[in-house]
Amino acid sequence: MYRQRLIAPGPVEISPAVQAALSARQLHHRSPEAKAVVKRARELLRVVAGVSEAIEPIILTASGTGAFEAVLTSLVAREDQVLSISAGKFGERWADMAKALGYSVQEKRLEWGKSIPVSAVQVLLEANPNARALLVTHSETSTGALHDLEQIAHMAKQKNPEMLLIVDAITSLGVAELRLEAWGLDAVISGSQKATGAPPGLAFAFLSTRALEILNSTKSTGYYFDLRREVKVQATGETAFTPAINLIVGLNAALEPIAAEILEFGIEAYWANKKALNNALLLCAKALGCSSYADSPSPACVTLVPPEPISGRELWAALLKRGARAQTGQDGIKDKICRISFMGHFDRYDALGFAGLLEESLLDCGANITRGAGVAALWQALG
Amino acid sequence: MYRQRLIAPGPVEISPAVQAALSARQLHHRSPEAKAVVKRARELLRVVAGVSEAIEPIILTASGTGAFEAVLTSLVAREDQVLSISAGKFGERWADMAKALGYSVQEKRLEWGKSIPVSAVQVLLEANPNARALLVTHSETSTGALHDLEQIAHMAKQKNPEMLLIVDAITSLGVAELRLEAWGLDAVISGSQKATGAPPGLAFAFLSTRALEILNSTKSTGYYFDLRREVKVQATGETAFTPAINLIVGLNAALEPIAAEILEFGIEAYWANKKALNNALLLCAKALGCSSYADSPSPACVTLVPPEPISGRELWAALLKRGARAQTGQDGIKDKICRISFMGHFDRYDALGFAGLLEESLLDCGANITRGAGVAALWQALG
Repeated sequence: MYRQRLIAPGPVEISPAVQAALSARQLHHRSPEAKAVVKRARELLRVVAGVSEAIEPIILTASGTGAFEAVLTSLVAREDQVLSISAGKFGERWADMAKALGYSVQEKRLEWGKSIPVSAVQVLLEANPNARALLVTHSETSTGALHDLEQIAHMAKQKNPEMLLIVDAITSLGVAELRLEAWGLDAVISGSQKATGAPPGLAFAFLSTRALEILNSTKSTGYYFDLRREVKVQATGETAFTPAINLIVGLNAALEPIAAEILEFGIEAYWANKKALNNALLLCAKALGCSSYADSPSPACVTLVPPEPISGRELWAALLKRGARAQTGQDGIKDKICRISFMGHFDRYDALGFAGLLEESLLDCGANITRGAGVAALWQALG
Repeated sequence: MYRQRLIAPGPVEISPAVQAALSARQLHHRSPEAKAVVKRARELLRVVAGVSEAIEPIILTASGTGAFEAVLTSLVAREDQVLSISAGKFGERWADMAKALGYSVQEKRLEWGKSIPVSAVQVLLEANPNARALLVTHSETSTGALHDLEQIAHMAKQKNPEMLLIVDAITSLGVAELRLEAWGLDAVISGSQKATGAPPGLAFAFLSTRALEILNSTKSTGYYFDLRREVKVQATGETAFTPAINLIVGLNAALEPIAAEILEFGIEAYWANKKALNNALLLCAKALGCSSYADSPSPACVTLVPPEPISGRELWAALLKRGARAQTGQDGIKDKICRISFMGHFDRYDALGFAGLLEESLLDCGANITRGAGVAALWQALG
């Protein structure tokens, strides 16, 4: 009766072109065709990330967590001090990971749902003036908050210009404004199943020229995740170890139209469109009595708190009954919120369809709403 | 004019069923459908590996090297001594990896192409009676040699029963006789793009009950590759981090017919069939003046040395001109050998077709052979 829809903040819907690419004949990863695929993926990733040729995009067969571990263990020596500032599950994970890997970590955990105040970054930096790296998340997928990375990076550069800025952009890259070079970021991590609209299984690490220099003077403490080895070979389309080449073929099918749009209309227009879609979804939800859990919503997803007494989990279950898979919250806000994303193969008409789905799902939950109010609000917002 | 063929020792040809599975709609890895996929993959992997329910098969999104790192860093403490015995590039890699990861490594590198003599294992073990782990490769893909893992394991158990036996079975699992439980192996590593006939991007670690106990008392020095975390969740179809779920869907499509065949005819018959196919290929090549580089050929691939003055690389290039991608040698034997594998979606009639391809490719290289001799030898061998 209902079509199956994926509206979670990753994995996202993939396009028929991606599906077709995934079903192509098996390539050998050492063949010239496969090398051309890897080289093309790196070109397209640079376009989607809005970075110049100076930035090295590294493709890894792993999840985003794997790529974060690769960046950390390849750039930061085990005896160095690492700082972490967070306001959500993923930000907290990076501190936990750094501790598990044996680093000395100073961290500041802030209230979930809020955007990290730059003053908190300042306090952390002033208390730890010799830290080697700061770990920070741009779009916190557990709470739906976008952190002000530009201001955080500005403060970091002022207080400790030698410190490395390592950024989890897993759900922000290709969605939110993100300027690796202008903001002075050293490493930016993302994953294939988010804005790039490909299946999960690949992760990306974008390295600044400074990070590349440091890479050459630091010994990685990992082996599979040794980025020095990858940097050496990926420019030629090789990878240090056997890659998930079929997924890279699929990734290119996903990235080609995105890159074409960015090259034609500019990356600012691309970001603006993503923001407008997400904002329309928020206005639609608000017109239906929902509120946003995040004070400063990321364009990658909305984290809805339904009108009382409906829980986020009830809304999630009602959406699922109508074929649409969103995501509940995690840990302490497991039942409180319902997370919805328009990333991936998704346009304004899909958004309009979703407005109807949200209305009827809220009605299923017994919400006291006017049929058509959500649809009207979304369509008005996209006008 | 010629159809494209993949005859390298991985990635191998995938079946149309695998291609179709790869092009299915995107699953969310936390959905019940995805969990059922992961659980089914684990059941099928147990059948293909010929192990009981007591053995834990762990699926990782990584290459085989990643899985080897995961096993090593999850089971062996950094201060423990590791032994490595090898006679080829992959065996040598495990010693290099262990060193890079900070272990104290005692290794014995033997001549490439030879099967590891059990006496050499004995000498290494007697010289290092307190070693915590022995790293050994079952089928050495760089040389095409199959090592006598049963005898090596027997010697290891005799000399140091407390020592862990960590086995690279990347190209042997599902091809060569391999008895994890009967031989007392503690960890066996394999990859999706070999005998299982799926695309690359997934790796497997099979852990013995003893390894599982040790896992609980050892702190992993990695994070993404922390197997304790994976063991806890994979029984329920979860994974610790976002997996390449599309590849697991493809993997199941590849494993279903293999597991069905094993369940119907027994794993011995399955291994015998793989061995017979590879043996027929060897006899065909010998009838055409080629010899085997390996003294004790693995059923996973043949490593051909063509008749003088033709180099392995020339044969490789001639095969490629006729659409078939085999693999050259590596490092010191780069040009000497041509590696060919019948793993994956490949049967006796494909083998017969290949005999003709090998004949004509050798003729292209100027070999002094009788047309039909290779075809007759192969077909006779398969009779």
